[in-house]
Amino acid sequence: MTELIYEQPLSEKIRSYLRLEYLAQQLRHNLEHDHQQRCFYPLFSLLDLNERCDYRSDLLKEIDKQLAVLIKWQRLPHVDSNEVQGYIDGLAKGREGLQSPSRIGSELKQDRFLSALRQRFGMAGACCNFDLPQLHFWLAKSWDERSHEYSQWASHFMPLLAPIELLLSLIRSTSDYQDATAAGGFFQGTNAQALSLIRVKLDAAQGCYPTISGHKNRYAIHFVRFDDQRHSDKTITFQLATCA
Amino acid sequence: MTELIYEQPLSEKIRSYLRLEYLAQQLRHNLEHDHQQRCFYPLFSLLDLNERCDYRSDLLKEIDKQLAVLIKWQRLPHVDSNEVQGYIDGLAKGREGLQSPSRIGSELKQDRFLSALRQRFGMAGACCNFDLPQLHFWLAKSWDERSHEYSQWASHFMPLLAPIELLLSLIRSTSDYQDATAAGGFFQGTNAQALSLIRVKLDAAQGCYPTISGHKNRYAIHFVRFDDQRHSDKTITFQLATCA
Repeated sequence: MTELIYEQPLSEKIRSYLRLEYLAQQLRHNLEHDHQQRCFYPLFSLLDLNERCDYRSDLLKEIDKQLAVLIKWQRLPHVDSNEVQGYIDGLAKGREGLQSPSRIGSELKQDRFLSALRQRFGMAGACCNFDLPQLHFWLAKSWDERSHEYSQWASHFMPLLAPIELLLSLIRSTSDYQDATAAGGFFQGTNAQALSLIRVKLDAAQGCYPTISGHKNRYAIHFVRFDDQRHSDKTITFQLATCA
Repeated sequence: MTELIYEQPLSEKIRSYLRLEYLAQQLRHNLEHDHQQRCFYPLFSLLDLNERCDYRSDLLKEIDKQLAVLIKWQRLPHVDSNEVQGYIDGLAKGREGLQSPSRIGSELKQDRFLSALRQRFGMAGACCNFDLPQLHFWLAKSWDERSHEYSQWASHFMPLLAPIELLLSLIRSTSDYQDATAAGGFFQGTNAQALSLIRVKLDAAQGCYPTISGHKNRYAIHFVRFDDQRHSDKTITFQLATCA
């Protein structure tokens, strides 16, 4: 049984966090395996996103808000105080890392090699030998050397990505999965408290995936058959977690 | 010693061929190793390029031109007639493959899964779980299943890519490498016969890469240091092949 987890953010903030978390995972994959020139996509996506939006001040506010909640939790009797302390320490450390005066990724924009590559990476098939001889040179370096350079480039984004990964892990921990059933491939839910994230756990053998939509207190899940990419009218059993 | 080959097309036609050849190589890499969602980039690049330009009629003309030359060569006494016959057979087969009435890649545009992915692949970090739940589903399939599907998608482009790879191999075979020296990191050449491709073979240990420019009868090679991405003023020894 292959159980897959599908997530849907119910606010713009969580949407950004999930996108950045996804790119953080991609950076790590590219350090674990040699994906050659493909490794540059998440790096350039992070540069693009950080150019468009400075996430730091909102993120600092969110860290402070969560720290205040965690410190309250710490006083409750039935709480795993080690786990809570771990989050408090992690977020406090993340707070420090965000104090730098310069915008995240701004130093990488000075890198002539990366800048030349970045200009061409959006174009169709535009990373040929003749388009980017410097990339051809770089790819011939040893994997040790390349992964070392890559980890240095990736490290520029870590002050942003590490606290976001921690916040998302905290948000996911606010809810456990419950069994749920979608009659006719459709499920709808409401919640008095504002939600930030919907999670659906589904066995891949059912041959379908969920498309989730919603906002704060309401959400709807449609199940779509993978084979013809159309709405499934079967009864689907799945597991649902709604995170605040 | 890591010897790297850098190529520069001297005509628009060869420029297109090299770009398509590069994408053909990428398709193959993605069948040899699991690069997950990264495998879609060359596929979508090929769709983009074939939408912008129908390469078939020009390619058929080029095949006919080269077949006429090869048939003349076949009559010469000092020629490796097996090799020449191999090219003739390959190009004749490539000719047949290009006779289909529908544009290359047009069937893939009907694929709902690929179309949904393609819409998002150009955006920064836009292949998240929540952007493309169908991609999340697909990536959980076995590598056997995925590579089988991928090879079917890739096969749509083979009638175009196979003869182009053969033509480029023929063009490269028209010239052998000669020793050359770039004083002050610069080399200039002229040729009475129109050239289509410049090839530079260079030891990576020299720490630089060539940037080549030119058109038909003239070309210039500047060597650039990788470390600071600036023109090298050293004397660089390299090997040069100029292909007609």
